[in-house]
Amino acid sequence: MTQLSSEQDFLTLIDKYFPSENGHITLGRGDDCSILRTDKELCISKDLFLEDIHFRRSYFSAADIGYKSLAVNISDIAAMGGRPKGFELGLIIPPSLGIDFWEPFFQAMSDLAKTNNIILAGGDLSKGQYLGISITVWGEPAENGIFLSRGNAKIGDILFLHGQAGMARTGLLALEELGPQAAKLYPESVKAHLRPTMRVKEGLKLAASSHVRGLMDLSDGLARDLPRFLNCCTGSLGAEISLPESSLHPEIIHYAKSKSASACDHAYLGGEDYALFGAVSAKGFKELTSSIPDLKAIGKITAGSKIYLNGAIYAADGFDHFSK
Amino acid sequence: MTQLSSEQDFLTLIDKYFPSENGHITLGRGDDCSILRTDKELCISKDLFLEDIHFRRSYFSAADIGYKSLAVNISDIAAMGGRPKGFELGLIIPPSLGIDFWEPFFQAMSDLAKTNNIILAGGDLSKGQYLGISITVWGEPAENGIFLSRGNAKIGDILFLHGQAGMARTGLLALEELGPQAAKLYPESVKAHLRPTMRVKEGLKLAASSHVRGLMDLSDGLARDLPRFLNCCTGSLGAEISLPESSLHPEIIHYAKSKSASACDHAYLGGEDYALFGAVSAKGFKELTSSIPDLKAIGKITAGSKIYLNGAIYAADGFDHFSK
Repeated sequence: MTQLSSEQDFLTLIDKYFPSENGHITLGRGDDCSILRTDKELCISKDLFLEDIHFRRSYFSAADIGYKSLAVNISDIAAMGGRPKGFELGLIIPPSLGIDFWEPFFQAMSDLAKTNNIILAGGDLSKGQYLGISITVWGEPAENGIFLSRGNAKIGDILFLHGQAGMARTGLLALEELGPQAAKLYPESVKAHLRPTMRVKEGLKLAASSHVRGLMDLSDGLARDLPRFLNCCTGSLGAEISLPESSLHPEIIHYAKSKSASACDHAYLGGEDYALFGAVSAKGFKELTSSIPDLKAIGKITAGSKIYLNGAIYAADGFDHFSK
Repeated sequence: MTQLSSEQDFLTLIDKYFPSENGHITLGRGDDCSILRTDKELCISKDLFLEDIHFRRSYFSAADIGYKSLAVNISDIAAMGGRPKGFELGLIIPPSLGIDFWEPFFQAMSDLAKTNNIILAGGDLSKGQYLGISITVWGEPAENGIFLSRGNAKIGDILFLHGQAGMARTGLLALEELGPQAAKLYPESVKAHLRPTMRVKEGLKLAASSHVRGLMDLSDGLARDLPRFLNCCTGSLGAEISLPESSLHPEIIHYAKSKSASACDHAYLGGEDYALFGAVSAKGFKELTSSIPDLKAIGKITAGSKIYLNGAIYAADGFDHFSK
């Protein structure tokens, strides 16, 4: 029996059987969202959030699970520069969980939905042995009608980041090692893992700028997501990334030191940061920082297909939910 | 710890936290689909399809699972009189399944998608201990722009059925008892359970008629779905249902006899038939049968809230995926 051992094997197999675009879908598989043609376009995305795969109940509270399961979906809409509008909720429900779990779960999810003005449109419930949340979310474009996909970056473009690379990975590893106690040593990293910040407003501002050439959210870390971003662009593009230790959060540096690891590599590997990452013309970047002050330049697009991290050539893997 | 012991408990809890309609959703939770407002409306629905909850691998082939997981979703679009357009696919993938499983799985799903001219727009993959399929599907209305929800039936309306009530239940129970051998004794019932027929064309024809007052698909059986249908209508409505043994498939009668049970009760309990069930004005029914010859009248809407089956008052439960 031949095994399908990676996500890519599955995607290749799926591509073999399913066309990815037609007159209805104007942007198909491979980006953060797909775009459905309606007279007013919607973008739509789906993320599974499963016990012992994406979260552990030993250090995620019910409210954390309710929040994050919806948040990671909303982030895909933000990554298109879209405005989230609605979602469908599938719940796989283990018999052991009672109302003391579900009340805070729904409360946190509902609060996040309200903050983002999105409505729960429907869904499905089922018993199961492990808790699982399957959400499909969709959104509308900003006033100019434009969604930001990943492609279109050009040589010389500035690569920018809104959010921190490596914080959530620090939180995850600390939580795996120390359990809930990790919050004492690494409070902000733990928060970044349990309660990632949504960046819908920033996404909408980026989509409103004519200078932004591509956008995505960092769900699997720069090491994995940057090559994906470049692969979506036309031609053979590379990148120079600058993540000096001085730019990193003290918790990242502290954690890496405790493991005798490079803090820069640790941040670059990242994973689950849900920071917004994209490309903008050098001219446009300055303009953007006046409306989004905490937007950081972390590198630029170069000719050729090589990736440099802090001046040295880089080849490594990022975070893979599937093979984790 | 207070347990949530039924689907209704969950729906009540969800209703407590989430509004069900706003300017974006013009038809919210509680029907087969929710309707999103776009300039051209879409209807959208989601169904989980989980190992050992909704199917067993001991008698479902990989192809059966690929087919049925998408089919039960398409049926929700048919139940709105809609035209399915696209879907998102979430897969929970146990490590033991190799390419010899996934090839026929995707082939059958792809064939069904092609037959219905719908496109796989995206989704998510994850490892997991049990196989699970989570699909969100959406569709457009027919040319007149009308979706058929459940409400609006009136006293004197004909209740109609397209498809057989009780076939899939016969297949399920025989398969649970006999395994794949059940197909020898109950070939059509087993097929009805493993490969339910989609009724998209009939749904579109029903939506094109101005006489049809409400439509749904029988996923949980008449005993459970009929009260839901009546509850969606204005006022206190009842129904008289006629399912004489002479109208039932011989396999249903044979199975019920082998258990010394009533074939009529068995058919009425049903479950997973994905037959279309609805209400139409008495005048309109005749007109409909000329365009949909195999549409059957099985009863009528009455005043008061009582339900009669073959002349006797009826109170019982149908099929509940959740508490199964």
